[in-house]
Amino acid sequence: MRMVDIISKKRNGTKLEEAEIRFFIENYMKDEIPDYQVSALLMAIYYQGMDQDETALLTKVMVESGDEIDLSPIKGHKVDKHSTGGVGDKTTLIVGPLVAAAGIPVAKMSGRGLGHTGGTIDKLESIPGFQVEITNDQFIRNVNQYKLAVVGQTGNLAPADKKLYALRDVTATVESIPLIASSIMSKKIASGADSIVLDVKTGSGAFMKSLEDSKRLAKEMVQIGNQLGRRTIAVISDMNQPLGYEIGNANEVREAIHVLQGKQVEDLRELVLELAAHMTILAGIYSSYEEAIAKLTILLDEGHALKAFKDFILAQNGDISVIEDPEKLPSSSYHIQVSAKQTGYIHEITADTIGIAAMHLGAGRAKKDDQVHHGVGITLHKKIGDKVEIDEPLATLHADQEDVQEIMELIRDAITIQDNPSNKPKMIYEVIDK
Amino acid sequence: MRMVDIISKKRNGTKLEEAEIRFFIENYMKDEIPDYQVSALLMAIYYQGMDQDETALLTKVMVESGDEIDLSPIKGHKVDKHSTGGVGDKTTLIVGPLVAAAGIPVAKMSGRGLGHTGGTIDKLESIPGFQVEITNDQFIRNVNQYKLAVVGQTGNLAPADKKLYALRDVTATVESIPLIASSIMSKKIASGADSIVLDVKTGSGAFMKSLEDSKRLAKEMVQIGNQLGRRTIAVISDMNQPLGYEIGNANEVREAIHVLQGKQVEDLRELVLELAAHMTILAGIYSSYEEAIAKLTILLDEGHALKAFKDFILAQNGDISVIEDPEKLPSSSYHIQVSAKQTGYIHEITADTIGIAAMHLGAGRAKKDDQVHHGVGITLHKKIGDKVEIDEPLATLHADQEDVQEIMELIRDAITIQDNPSNKPKMIYEVIDK
Repeated sequence: MRMVDIISKKRNGTKLEEAEIRFFIENYMKDEIPDYQVSALLMAIYYQGMDQDETALLTKVMVESGDEIDLSPIKGHKVDKHSTGGVGDKTTLIVGPLVAAAGIPVAKMSGRGLGHTGGTIDKLESIPGFQVEITNDQFIRNVNQYKLAVVGQTGNLAPADKKLYALRDVTATVESIPLIASSIMSKKIASGADSIVLDVKTGSGAFMKSLEDSKRLAKEMVQIGNQLGRRTIAVISDMNQPLGYEIGNANEVREAIHVLQGKQVEDLRELVLELAAHMTILAGIYSSYEEAIAKLTILLDEGHALKAFKDFILAQNGDISVIEDPEKLPSSSYHIQVSAKQTGYIHEITADTIGIAAMHLGAGRAKKDDQVHHGVGITLHKKIGDKVEIDEPLATLHADQEDVQEIMELIRDAITIQDNPSNKPKMIYEVIDK
Repeated sequence: MRMVDIISKKRNGTKLEEAEIRFFIENYMKDEIPDYQVSALLMAIYYQGMDQDETALLTKVMVESGDEIDLSPIKGHKVDKHSTGGVGDKTTLIVGPLVAAAGIPVAKMSGRGLGHTGGTIDKLESIPGFQVEITNDQFIRNVNQYKLAVVGQTGNLAPADKKLYALRDVTATVESIPLIASSIMSKKIASGADSIVLDVKTGSGAFMKSLEDSKRLAKEMVQIGNQLGRRTIAVISDMNQPLGYEIGNANEVREAIHVLQGKQVEDLRELVLELAAHMTILAGIYSSYEEAIAKLTILLDEGHALKAFKDFILAQNGDISVIEDPEKLPSSSYHIQVSAKQTGYIHEITADTIGIAAMHLGAGRAKKDDQVHHGVGITLHKKIGDKVEIDEPLATLHADQEDVQEIMELIRDAITIQDNPSNKPKMIYEVIDK
């Protein structure tokens, strides 16, 4: 078998066989196939695509390139949740304790990575004392006892994906749906959960801007998961504006605690219940969507999810007094208002731009070695569809520096006010289960 | 400027600017852009193509990456001829002296390269004593005095093309018409001729199998040449069977001498006159096609072209007694007949297969370091459309080995005989001049 023939085959639009996909990934990992042949193949895949079988096979071979986490010491049906990434997305902090309260063991491995804010791990670290570096035994024990534990990613998961992604990043071959789908799913499958609920964001602040592309991506991921023996479902949710009102690390933990305490943050609460419902159904805890939503609403409203959150934080050495008094979370030196320049209705809050503003404040990492500032971030006071008066605050910047002129401009640019009323965007567009 | 943005732009089908093409080639030559980004761009070009401006610019930048031959010490309008390559193509050996006889200075630089037979240089070296390694001064002097000289390629012509081609070869990006066109034209333009006549082969034995692709390639090369200030014309000629009857090095020299002596090798003579006509018109020697064909026919029939050939061979130290007695050319130890297994008409002579058979006999190089055997080759006794009787010889193998069973099978497979009569293929399909 020669790599040039595999490239040529895909270039001409012919389906690749398992042996060819295996040859390509395995030899690439042994450095026996050079980057320049792989990038040519990736570009051919960009144009010719891959069908369901090819995409599932690629995923499988990438999973097999590294460690596969064994979650069998954890009792019960393990369900993982994954979001394709958005601004203000703190759902894990609420969904985790909520489904734990419903009885699902949540063994969450989470990364730090690059982005507008830190990852789930960084957010949790804004709680004083919280320990993410626990041993594997402790992790398993905590999940079995408290149904929820979060640990920094361990093991060498899907190294072939890592190597391919680094190459795609510099060869303009990131934006290929089968490549994105197999990349995400290889890491999820290597993480060992029995079932997977995907939160595929759609809209201006999402990686997939159009509903159509989001649906295609969701469909491909669901098919890969199911083909590789993991029951997988995808919820397509809105990312035309940030989720909830808070962006930043401590900011998002604070908002999550508020929701766990019963605060009605409409869009965030709707998404959390939707994701949790599918997770509990996949785990066999509830038997219908209606039952799941009803029971989960009770668990949330009656404080069971909050209790699970407390247990989890305490088990990982966190200071749970922040739950009673979220103001004890890290905060910033300056609080600066961005006010409306006109009266009207909010038509747009470009999530991407808000995210970049948060990163400029120091909430996220632009480069791998950047330090995340836990106390900085952005609080929105308005969402799309809200009425606003001139000079009324649109957002508050939580900053560690006084000069935030450019960041204020970014925020103002991101928020469009018009005279005519506008509708709130839909939160859930579709659920894809095959 | 970043290479990833250039790849992305072309990937999305947007035209590249001169600065971008220059950035890419210049930095690739300095090893500041890695192969893996270039191969991704090449694959994007494979799908998205390049327009006339982009292709001409790429050619220009590739020319500028190396030496450009200065032919100004040679008096007169220099016209180069280039063939895209076929089996039995000895036209240079006849066209050269013919247009020299008409007064065009022919300063031919020729390579050895890989192929079914050697290059023009190898063929000429089958003439005892012939010297291809002459000094630059001698070369210029010979052309000025005898109108014709052939020398091994000197200088570092279009090294960017060389580097790109090596990468295309292993990344399945050879078959792109703008890339093929710019590759060929970069070397032709760097060779310094004022005008260029391209012989673009079409058919089963050509790189371009379909007439449509051959026309597209011809058109692109003509446009590049004209855009870069070299008057360029392309003749699309048949390669559905080998050209003439002889394949091999001495074999082809022998056939060329016979044609120069007036032998009516129909297809070969037609192509030679056609190419020579366009060369002389571009050089301003004749003013119409009809005049050119008439005058060149006289030059050929009255022995002026043969005289020019003799002068040229003698000037480069060759033994011209082979011209009176072509049997003095190198020959092989064995002559083996391949005969017809049935009576009928020749429908097909797959040129590719005949070429491979010649290479197996030792006439060409499969690898760069292979030695060319001057005396081996194939003589065809029939061409498409000819009638053949059972047991009549179809071809003679000139071999240096006795066991040629497999090569005989190749020849037999290449030649299809059917009961019903068939037509001779057309020699010239089209002339493309813009």
